[in-house]
Amino acid sequence: MEGLELISFNIISNVGSAKSKVMESMQKSRNGEFEEAQQLIMEANDFLMIGEKEHFQVITQEAKEKNVDITILFMHAEDQLMSTVTLRDIANEVLENYKMMYELKQLIKEKM
Amino acid sequence: MEGLELISFNIISNVGSAKSKVMESMQKSRNGEFEEAQQLIMEANDFLMIGEKEHFQVITQEAKEKNVDITILFMHAEDQLMSTVTLRDIANEVLENYKMMYELKQLIKEKM
Amino acid sequence: MEGLELISFNIISNVGSAKSKVMESMQKSRNGEFEEAQQLIMEANDFLMIGEKEHFQVITQEAKEKNVDITILFMHAEDQLMSTVTLRDIANEVLENYKMMYELKQLIKEKM
Repeated sequence: MEGLELISFNIISNVGSAKSKVMESMQKSRNGEFEEAQQLIMEANDFLMIGEKEHFQVITQEAKEKNVDITILFMHAEDQLMSTVTLRDIANEVLENYKMMYELKQLIKEKM
Repeated sequence: MEGLELISFNIISNVGSAKSKVMESMQKSRNGEFEEAQQLIMEANDFLMIGEKEHFQVITQEAKEKNVDITILFMHAEDQLMSTVTLRDIANEVLENYKMMYELKQLIKEKM
Repeated sequence: MEGLELISFNIISNVGSAKSKVMESMQKSRNGEFEEAQQLIMEANDFLMIGEKEHFQVITQEAKEKNVDITILFMHAEDQLMSTVTLRDIANEVLENYKMMYELKQLIKEKM
């Protein structure tokens, strides 16, 4: 498939940006900065959507033409994409988790 | 390898069901519904086992015949499988984590 | 590419050891044994570094020669590597999370 190298680099670049945002989001959640954490997940989603669009383009190409030669670079791009989607799902849970923890902290402060 | 497309769709379908169960389990844990959360992880495991069985069948086929032509669809199926196994491992930890959090909540309520 | 089977097994073996360390680390964090948890993540990192070195060697080989025939075994090795990197990132967050939880626990004990 023509352009697979370019597509791979495009996925890797956008997914890399998404991963940075997700990691930063978890740090913000830990610090109790929940609006910032939420904002960073939304920014990560924008980058992930570009990666996913490229991914579906290649899947569709294969379904139509059955002749996509897989490269290790593309395989790596796909691995990065799926890992970062998982990490994003978890960052959402981490955000909710720290929210509850900070509520408990607040409760202890108030009542003591 | 014959039937790889069917195997790929079979993995994607079962792993998709497993992922839904895992996501639902984390939500139940967050709400303090730990038995339901545990039950959903067990249901996810049943779907994952079907995916893993198909996965090992293809790995074994390659080891025996050395002629499995990899498709992007199968690669995607494998990525989904591995990601969901990771998510399941984390859902187990999320469950334990919220259990401790709800115990703390209870402790605060009782003592104040 | 010659030696790809050996490289695949080498990645799978080292990443398997890393995953065990990461899973053990999360358990230690849950038990409040944070130094041990930290130590286990560092040990996991050592195993992951070996896997990542092999991974880059294959990526580089492809970039130079464009003739790496991908096997399902290598694909599986790469999936394991990426999943475990994600799990390691999360184990770091799990450690920080339980630290805060144990601090809350201590605070409740002291003030009541």
